[in-house]
Amino acid sequence: MASLVRSSALRALKPLLNDALNPRAQTLRVRAFSTTLSPPSKAVVYEQHGPPDSVTRVINLPPVEVKENDVCVKMLAAPINPSDINRIEGVYPVRPQVPAVGGYEGVGEVHSVGSAVKGLSPGDLVIPSPPSFGTWQNYIVKDQSVWYKINKDSPLEYAATVTVNPLTALRMLEDFTTLKSGDVVVQNGATSIVGQCIIQLAKNRGIHSVNIIRDRAGSDEVKEKLKKLGADEVFTESELQVKDAKSLLAGIPEPALGFNCVGGNAASLVLKFLGRGGTMVTYGGMSKKPITVSTSSFIFKDLSLRGFWLQSWMSTEKAAECRVLIDHLLDLAREGKLKYEMELVPFDGFHAALDKALGKQGSQPKQVINF
Amino acid sequence: MASLVRSSALRALKPLLNDALNPRAQTLRVRAFSTTLSPPSKAVVYEQHGPPDSVTRVINLPPVEVKENDVCVKMLAAPINPSDINRIEGVYPVRPQVPAVGGYEGVGEVHSVGSAVKGLSPGDLVIPSPPSFGTWQNYIVKDQSVWYKINKDSPLEYAATVTVNPLTALRMLEDFTTLKSGDVVVQNGATSIVGQCIIQLAKNRGIHSVNIIRDRAGSDEVKEKLKKLGADEVFTESELQVKDAKSLLAGIPEPALGFNCVGGNAASLVLKFLGRGGTMVTYGGMSKKPITVSTSSFIFKDLSLRGFWLQSWMSTEKAAECRVLIDHLLDLAREGKLKYEMELVPFDGFHAALDKALGKQGSQPKQVINF
Repeated sequence: MASLVRSSALRALKPLLNDALNPRAQTLRVRAFSTTLSPPSKAVVYEQHGPPDSVTRVINLPPVEVKENDVCVKMLAAPINPSDINRIEGVYPVRPQVPAVGGYEGVGEVHSVGSAVKGLSPGDLVIPSPPSFGTWQNYIVKDQSVWYKINKDSPLEYAATVTVNPLTALRMLEDFTTLKSGDVVVQNGATSIVGQCIIQLAKNRGIHSVNIIRDRAGSDEVKEKLKKLGADEVFTESELQVKDAKSLLAGIPEPALGFNCVGGNAASLVLKFLGRGGTMVTYGGMSKKPITVSTSSFIFKDLSLRGFWLQSWMSTEKAAECRVLIDHLLDLAREGKLKYEMELVPFDGFHAALDKALGKQGSQPKQVINF
Repeated sequence: MASLVRSSALRALKPLLNDALNPRAQTLRVRAFSTTLSPPSKAVVYEQHGPPDSVTRVINLPPVEVKENDVCVKMLAAPINPSDINRIEGVYPVRPQVPAVGGYEGVGEVHSVGSAVKGLSPGDLVIPSPPSFGTWQNYIVKDQSVWYKINKDSPLEYAATVTVNPLTALRMLEDFTTLKSGDVVVQNGATSIVGQCIIQLAKNRGIHSVNIIRDRAGSDEVKEKLKKLGADEVFTESELQVKDAKSLLAGIPEPALGFNCVGGNAASLVLKFLGRGGTMVTYGGMSKKPITVSTSSFIFKDLSLRGFWLQSWMSTEKAAECRVLIDHLLDLAREGKLKYEMELVPFDGFHAALDKALGKQGSQPKQVINF
């Protein structure tokens, strides 16, 4: 069986996972006397890539040794993100080696610490930062460097989800164009959590947002909801199938920066709104359609098309500031300046939550497992 | 009739053009005694936008006053570039106001200078730099600041064409990615003049080039010709319709920079070759097909798509270095390190040359009018 190489903690998990998955292999494992052990843990595990609802199961893992530099964290909450689903399906460019525990971000409380650990004590609220694999389990044992202590007053569900979506929104607003108060951004997929974060983070900086949503029943309510978050303009795709869509933006400057998480026609609409020299950043492709661009958009309108992938950003030296940004985002969440809908579900209801995250019941709030 | 506002010289031409086009208006024009005048001039003029072969005609323009800061240049050679054709058609984003004289770059010899002109004397070889409208005529009178004196040993046809194509190639190699010796670029439309310049300018800096050409009869000869210019690899589009086109690049690194002047499938092939974090610069769209890009190219491969338009570059502060670059390119042409095919045609044969430039006789060398 392939070895787990993603992190030392997952490496440590391997014999345990193998034991748990093959009961006959659970023979004699001799441990040194006085070794600190984690409590036993329930975990969402997949042994092969495939449809998440059929390849994942919840199993019991035996205790893990807490070495001198390790911290054992009792997980409190962790979301089911679309990228978690893609990782299980095996369609993500970074393919965790199986068997693996699902999940990538989350929040927990320090349960016990190794003898050489400094700066973390039982009861501290921590997140894995940068995020790392295997957050869908009751107890995680990883090196102390993995864990970042956050403000104890942080709302749990935001602490569990602060990195993947809000940090993406924040980086995309900062890393491509220098925006100042009064500037304008345009985005499709505005109802996504990243989209909602962009609206609020932009608003917080005095930046206007033009938002495109798909045609749907109840679009007026959706518009109202996004405007309450701070959206300046919200259009459905069909409202923009007019000759001069730009004339709809009376009184605000042409957008300098655009965000695309849909592709196809919705991406073309973002390009249409962008002013000369503008940049469109692609961070998702919900329609599964490619992006089509005219030659003249590049030559005469001087548009730039770029992409953003948080996991790649995390591997650069820029990620050093990640933890400072997390604090900033959690401050905003605490102050009610950054909000989005989530549904907290008990760990026992994992597969029901997974079905919702897979879209089996239509559009649903983000599912966050409450351990 | 709309006024000519593109340059002071064209403004000055307006009454003359109107007179020339409306013989009945050629009445009394009183000139001050002792005014220096240009010789009368033949010019390719269009009174309205439309198909170049039907809207252009060669007319005689009366003499123009050479004011104290003006220089009168006897044009020696000027090319028919695709962008000249687009300007006449009225499909170019910068639409010269009609009536207008055609042409945008060229080379000439100083014929006479105004009383306040310094640094230019009759007999000097000059080009309009940055290039400007109206080079398809025997004599041009424009402010001294328009003209740049070049080395008298410059080969005429290269001096006439050095700005639009070779400078585009040079800027595109410099302005998007920092390339060092041993790096690789990939391009489609490799037989275009810009394409040939990219091959040679890259070679001159120790940069490898991977070149894509369309399928055609005699493609082996075309490959041979491009390899003689310094191309490392040349493929036809159909040779690249294989699963792993990248494996064809044995032994050279993945390209960091790509150039697209075709669009459609040929653009997709450039994208396919680019390595992670690579940039594709679009500067033309010969197939008239848009560029289609997958979402994952942006997110997981971190590709950037940009555009280049020389006329826009010329309007930035970077254009200050334009004249230094022209000298460099003309040095290379003189040393035989920068070459491409051209056909010199007499001014009398303008419309036959225009037909060739319009592609009526299939692929032809660049047509350069020899006045």
